[in-house]
Amino acid sequence: MKVLGSILSALLLACITTVQAETLPLPEGVISLASPEGEALLVGAEARNDYFPLSINFTTQINPAYCGPATIAMVLNALNVPRPASKKTLGLGLFDQENIFTPAADAVKPAKAILSPPYGMTLDDLGGLLAAHDLKVTDVHASESDLDAFRKTAVAELADDDHFILVNYLRKAIGQESGGHISPLGAYDADTDRFLILDVTRYKYPPVWVTAEALFAAMNTVDSDNDGKTRGYVSVSR
Amino acid sequence: MKVLGSILSALLLACITTVQAETLPLPEGVISLASPEGEALLVGAEARNDYFPLSINFTTQINPAYCGPATIAMVLNALNVPRPASKKTLGLGLFDQENIFTPAADAVKPAKAILSPPYGMTLDDLGGLLAAHDLKVTDVHASESDLDAFRKTAVAELADDDHFILVNYLRKAIGQESGGHISPLGAYDADTDRFLILDVTRYKYPPVWVTAEALFAAMNTVDSDNDGKTRGYVSVSR
Ligand SMILES: [Ca+2]
Ligand SMILES: [Ca+2]
Ligand SMILES: [Ca+2]
Ligand SMILES: [Ca+2]
Repeated sequence: MKVLGSILSALLLACITTVQAETLPLPEGVISLASPEGEALLVGAEARNDYFPLSINFTTQINPAYCGPATIAMVLNALNVPRPASKKTLGLGLFDQENIFTPAADAVKPAKAILSPPYGMTLDDLGGLLAAHDLKVTDVHASESDLDAFRKTAVAELADDDHFILVNYLRKAIGQESGGHISPLGAYDADTDRFLILDVTRYKYPPVWVTAEALFAAMNTVDSDNDGKTRGYVSVSR
Repeated sequence: MKVLGSILSALLLACITTVQAETLPLPEGVISLASPEGEALLVGAEARNDYFPLSINFTTQINPAYCGPATIAMVLNALNVPRPASKKTLGLGLFDQENIFTPAADAVKPAKAILSPPYGMTLDDLGGLLAAHDLKVTDVHASESDLDAFRKTAVAELADDDHFILVNYLRKAIGQESGGHISPLGAYDADTDRFLILDVTRYKYPPVWVTAEALFAAMNTVDSDNDGKTRGYVSVSR
């Protein structure tokens, strides 16, 4: 995953910006969930079972390289994986972007590696970190799949109680700034053939509805940090 | 607001708990948003305009005394109040539970005071902190209002684009553990006469649908930290 491009463009942005800042303008072709059209799509979505447990655990990545940890924390909470008790939470539990790094997870990819060049994590790291939490994981590089297979799997799993679908895609391919990115899917609308991405970079973009075709194309891009393999999607269950 | 009782009972809970922890069991009479019934209420809610901008900014209070700051951060983001740029967010902006304490807010109630006995903030503090962000604020102690007036105001403002409604209530009065609490409302269902509380203590409880009557009664309780005035609600707009 490349976030250096994003960092550079953001630094540039920071230079030309005043003391106030908003999320970035959305490209054509995607629909914000925070719009009348986006809300109506959710209400009329044909598969939206996963939206609710994910949205009540929606979180913002705590630094520019942490789209993966934020996504993992949301999904562990949504799956009701037994949570680590914490003093911060009155002895109750909630996964966050720090405590997901159990010893087993650290052995796959420690936080320190995610925070060092080339920053972030690959699709394989994502699958490995989830598996380190004793979950059943299937990760699929887009090049080994196709649009129809992805759609079929993702729609079925968005509709069921057991599985969640996480996507690793190139933002630039859907017109956003700009590098590789990871977030969970929340819903699917059959009438428009669009998936809802619950984007964890909440300071940058709202959740967006993206066509299945555009999303698959954005996953079917080479990740130069992952031995030239393509990005893709992860299916996860307990 | 009293959180000491909660802290004590949580410490007790922490003692009898093993390494894993879940959210607390829900009392009878409230309906979790994370249930088929709760999801159906949202889809069929007669006023739910505010749910979307709030839910995409849903956050967890960062310590047991911070229900107020978490609620304020969600509402400032949902209102699109110009956001402070931050290095943590690539030069873009997002309100969080630390940067809401601008000099003007600090003058009303500094973070340090919220973290000292008696912990947390009162309804009047909540209104004052929001006003310090140049917002239009109306705070209403429940004793000065009644169920019909509250319902009418809250339903109208949950349906419009401009206002948000925040509630300050006694958890114990709706069967939850246990002290005074603050969170935003997300929606209203007329068929069941229930409001949706987007509870910021996400490690403790999911969002719940509570009857208007029970919610009003829980607001119409004396806050011993606020000169014996009752809790209540705050209406806020830009
Ligand atoms: Ca539809
Ligand atoms: Ca599912
Ligand atoms: Ca209804
Ligand atoms: Ca409103």
